[in-house]
Amino acid sequence: MNPDQWQTYLVTQASLSAGRSTTDIVEAAIEGGVDAVQLREKGLDIGTRYELGRELRELTTEAGIDLIVNDRVDLAHAIGADGVHLGQSDLPVSAAREILGPEAIIGASVSTVSEARLAAITGADYLGVGAVYGTDSKPDAETADEGLGLDRLTDIAAAVKIPVVAIGGITPDNAAAAIDAGADAVAVISAITGADDPTAAARELSEAVDGASVEAEAETVEADDD
Amino acid sequence: MNPDQWQTYLVTQASLSAGRSTTDIVEAAIEGGVDAVQLREKGLDIGTRYELGRELRELTTEAGIDLIVNDRVDLAHAIGADGVHLGQSDLPVSAAREILGPEAIIGASVSTVSEARLAAITGADYLGVGAVYGTDSKPDAETADEGLGLDRLTDIAAAVKIPVVAIGGITPDNAAAAIDAGADAVAVISAITGADDPTAAARELSEAVDGASVEAEAETVEADDD
Ligand code: NI
Repeated sequence: MNPDQWQTYLVTQASLSAGRSTTDIVEAAIEGGVDAVQLREKGLDIGTRYELGRELRELTTEAGIDLIVNDRVDLAHAIGADGVHLGQSDLPVSAAREILGPEAIIGASVSTVSEARLAAITGADYLGVGAVYGTDSKPDAETADEGLGLDRLTDIAAAVKIPVVAIGGITPDNAAAAIDAGADAVAVISAITGADDPTAAARELSEAVDGASVEAEAETVEADDD
Repeated sequence: MNPDQWQTYLVTQASLSAGRSTTDIVEAAIEGGVDAVQLREKGLDIGTRYELGRELRELTTEAGIDLIVNDRVDLAHAIGADGVHLGQSDLPVSAAREILGPEAIIGASVSTVSEARLAAITGADYLGVGAVYGTDSKPDAETADEGLGLDRLTDIAAAVKIPVVAIGGITPDNAAAAIDAGADAVAVISAITGADDPTAAARELSEAVDGASVEAEAETVEADDD
């Protein structure tokens, strides 16, 4: 796939999966229609992430969806992932590109317009923008009441041409608002990993984005008619 | 250089450097004659290690010695390091080889003969064997009274043809014994990073290894004469 086809994107985190394995969560989420999976699992040593990554590679290849590895470019290369997702404190996009090659999908986390522009200029293929609504999945992230907000998301989406994936506090209830604000897709951790029924949660999320995308396209057509 | 030319090997750790920067410690250690430097610094985020690694790459290239990166194959590639050092919970040697190529120096941490044989078979260029005397540099390592001991070091050195670097509790006083036991070189963290005079400490270590190596060669010659 290509990032501009993504609508829903699952970031894995075993510690937020209510005792279920990441493999089980990913299988369930695939059944619910996610388009991309990011192997994060910062708490696991790299050897364990390598074994898990190989399992996720099988599942995602079978499903025809993308597998992205958080931070570790070497792990992405080793498991044949589709790409890597880099934070602001990770290796530069150019270093990842040299290792993974021109076809790899390289994403960058940004929270400001200038970070977004810089990431796009240095060759990122998509942006993870957040925390939009704030989140408590990442202990080091802004807290819930310090989310970037939808206006910032709109500004960032307007500043770059590459796809924008909104992350942080996204739920089936507020996903459409993020798409309306300019995001092309939404990423979640606990909205899926922590759900009683991860398949249903993924499906709800996907339907919410679908509905918003259709509306957004209709609006674009109307605007073009003017 | 080639690992079989190494005698002394410094592993960096800012948190064990008595408030001095890793760059300053490495400069001092180079002056004292170390043959290889390993960028470890697990406590620093990867972006910070990248910046530090670029500085160490300049210093080590200028000095004509090797720079090895702990664990992160992608970082090693990004800063043009000579190689990478992999622990038992890191990526497999083969994955590092694919990213870094045939010329790269890939080291593996082992503590048993079977780990040593496996690492050599899978293409490691040298082994880090320890903790020989036990160490408190690594909180997760065996404690001081649980070091592998010199007999294990001898067994491992006898089981493989690639160079063996002894690590763990090595000082100028006990370095010769490790060489006598079969090690080709010694690696230290705090014996240099924590020394009042890191240059003098590196020099003492290098002289201790030199003396032992000369003796070992003389013994080999005598043995050949029989
Ligand atoms: Ni390459």
